[in-house]
Amino acid sequence: MEQTMVTPRTLSGFKDRLPKEAYAKSKMLKSIMESFEKFGFAPIETPHLEYAEILKKQGSDEIQKEMYHFLDHGGREVALRFDLTVPLARFIAQHKNEVEFPFKRYCIGNVFRGERAQKGRYREFTQCDFDFIGTDSIGADVEILQVIYQTLFDLGLRDFTIHINNRKIFNGLMESLNASAHTEEVLRIIDKIDKIGKESVLQELQEKTPLNLNSINILLDFIAKTQNDDALELLQDLKSFGRLNNTLKNGIDELSTLCKILEPLIPEKFYKINLSIARGLGYYTGIIYETTLDTLPSLGSVCSGGRYDNLTQNFSKDSMSGVGASIGLDRLLAGLEELNLIKSNKNVADALLIALNSLEYGYKIAQNLRNQGLKIEMYPEITKPKKSFNYANSKGYKYVVVIGEEEEQKNTYTLKNMESGEQFNHLQLKEILQKIKS
Amino acid sequence: MEQTMVTPRTLSGFKDRLPKEAYAKSKMLKSIMESFEKFGFAPIETPHLEYAEILKKQGSDEIQKEMYHFLDHGGREVALRFDLTVPLARFIAQHKNEVEFPFKRYCIGNVFRGERAQKGRYREFTQCDFDFIGTDSIGADVEILQVIYQTLFDLGLRDFTIHINNRKIFNGLMESLNASAHTEEVLRIIDKIDKIGKESVLQELQEKTPLNLNSINILLDFIAKTQNDDALELLQDLKSFGRLNNTLKNGIDELSTLCKILEPLIPEKFYKINLSIARGLGYYTGIIYETTLDTLPSLGSVCSGGRYDNLTQNFSKDSMSGVGASIGLDRLLAGLEELNLIKSNKNVADALLIALNSLEYGYKIAQNLRNQGLKIEMYPEITKPKKSFNYANSKGYKYVVVIGEEEEQKNTYTLKNMESGEQFNHLQLKEILQKIKS
Repeated sequence: MEQTMVTPRTLSGFKDRLPKEAYAKSKMLKSIMESFEKFGFAPIETPHLEYAEILKKQGSDEIQKEMYHFLDHGGREVALRFDLTVPLARFIAQHKNEVEFPFKRYCIGNVFRGERAQKGRYREFTQCDFDFIGTDSIGADVEILQVIYQTLFDLGLRDFTIHINNRKIFNGLMESLNASAHTEEVLRIIDKIDKIGKESVLQELQEKTPLNLNSINILLDFIAKTQNDDALELLQDLKSFGRLNNTLKNGIDELSTLCKILEPLIPEKFYKINLSIARGLGYYTGIIYETTLDTLPSLGSVCSGGRYDNLTQNFSKDSMSGVGASIGLDRLLAGLEELNLIKSNKNVADALLIALNSLEYGYKIAQNLRNQGLKIEMYPEITKPKKSFNYANSKGYKYVVVIGEEEEQKNTYTLKNMESGEQFNHLQLKEILQKIKS
Repeated sequence: MEQTMVTPRTLSGFKDRLPKEAYAKSKMLKSIMESFEKFGFAPIETPHLEYAEILKKQGSDEIQKEMYHFLDHGGREVALRFDLTVPLARFIAQHKNEVEFPFKRYCIGNVFRGERAQKGRYREFTQCDFDFIGTDSIGADVEILQVIYQTLFDLGLRDFTIHINNRKIFNGLMESLNASAHTEEVLRIIDKIDKIGKESVLQELQEKTPLNLNSINILLDFIAKTQNDDALELLQDLKSFGRLNNTLKNGIDELSTLCKILEPLIPEKFYKINLSIARGLGYYTGIIYETTLDTLPSLGSVCSGGRYDNLTQNFSKDSMSGVGASIGLDRLLAGLEELNLIKSNKNVADALLIALNSLEYGYKIAQNLRNQGLKIEMYPEITKPKKSFNYANSKGYKYVVVIGEEEEQKNTYTLKNMESGEQFNHLQLKEILQKIKS
């Protein structure tokens, strides 16, 4: 009886990564972890699957709709995490007596959202979160910004801008217009300004909020004040605003302190005050930021975050403030690929070793070379050279070590440079190491 | 109105990892990936979620029952992967024209099984798989064994044994007893010999199979022939078995070739022929292996695998043979912890920097030290020294860099060794680097 076949395929919105792309992503992850650890952020792990009621306590209505939830074997309602922040809040509330505060953690993992599938948007994607919990100090805000800069710099990026704002400025502005009650709905519309433009935002604010045209113009004029690239000058200038109140002043002063500490830490060109950054998510209460690639602004923000007053409000009566940010790794990888900044190969080794005569001797030599610090892929068969050299070519190997009968008898190595076509015979161990490593 | 709280908790069988444990696991993963890459294995990635019908094509009945499956937003029946082998089979069938054969890949990821929760068994756990697909060469078997040895050795293990067997020996033995039709049921019982002992296996074979006592004794006597630690001698000895047939001979010869190539590659004490290793899973057809820690045999196998004739039979008409193995990372981590082989801290940095006077200057100095290659955690507040030094102690920091007014004025560093209590004042940059790095 013939077995029925199943068509091999992935779910819409989910993807495989072949070696070249997976290797590039893996190298990025390694670099990101090292950058986080430079600042003393330590990793934690939380499960992919949680009680649905825990994940349902936070996140927008849209995210709630997109959540993958179901009944498990024990009849519990469970769900796949849609971000790493809600699990962090649960983690902190659960383990607050087992960790030290201020608590610095990073967490790298996949999250799941059943969004409508579209180009560049996936239903499973990798986030790299880093948060600083249990301190109100501006130092924590400084450091999160430093980590963003350092991490992207360590990844080889040289053209990006961190856009910085403070929720308090927006809140103060709404206060000054006697419109505090409408802060959230206005924020949601303002948040779209980079996508739909100022005119459309103005129209939407007129149609969907009770703000009059005068108020809307004051609002939009104020948040457009980002022409000045000198952050401290810009902030000084904002203080001359006619409707200054305590909240606004407080927001401006915080940004001034932040920028003073940042000055010797991050080169000026990498950050700027941008009052139109809103960060839709409800829980931000202080300084917020987004990061764009200068040569690919259409990609959107690759790293966003900010300060929140109370992370654990749904799980604990203890208030727990903090600040954090998240790198959207898949989006960043797509961006780096588009900018040709990804240098990755199909092969991960320094050279391929082809044995022409004896597998036994070939494996021995391959291991000798590994013991000298080289990564060596051994071709596993004695075969026609055409076949094994084709393999070397299609894997993109620059170097092939060839070991035949003569090499075995004389204890020498033959090295072929597949790019130049040059072949070096009768090499000693030292010589071949030198050539491959150079 | 007060908000309702949700008790922060994880699902039964799922766990959080706090920094100390997560950091240890992360370091292990890094080491494992490096070991795999030494041999030219490249990473791939597949989704956590797949069409349920794809995952339902393989795996035992028990695993099928434990699978997490549900309907997604689009009404598709989907499931969380329960291993990395079925997704690999699907991946190979789907992408066979995009990769080079023989295809060497590793894949590290979490898998999900709704098993009955018990000590040390989790419903979500991490597997590290490495496979060599599309070659019948014994070289691939050799290399998978080499990778097991190298990976565990690189993790710091010095006392472990790889138990090697060949399915063909068992098949040949069953042939010689005219009992081939019962191979699978006998195999399942034999597989338990390490857990329940020879007597119980004998009894169960008598009760549950049609084999007579004479046949059972021949069988059990044969697979008990593992007293000889010299693999080649033992194999030679097996050939004198009175009921030798082609399958048996073939199985023994394969092991002999394997051991001859292995001899210069892996020190003798790390592997042995063990004819009682059965590997329950149906798809193995050739050489198979399990790995135990010598000082903690009760942990069971931490790395198992073997050769299979046809990986992709459910997804493609092309036959695709291969050989691979899998490290159960969580089990291995638990074992290393029990053996006190995990050297991990709550902190990931080289030192904590405490600013007594100016955050601004403190951040500058912390960054200076990072630029010299140190990992520095900066305490984010100017506070009473008692509080920040308590933090240093509870995080287990050996070194604290103290920067007060005097240090700022004189551009020097103060270093406190928290273990010895010694304090070094007026250090220059070079001196403090030397002390921390030493």
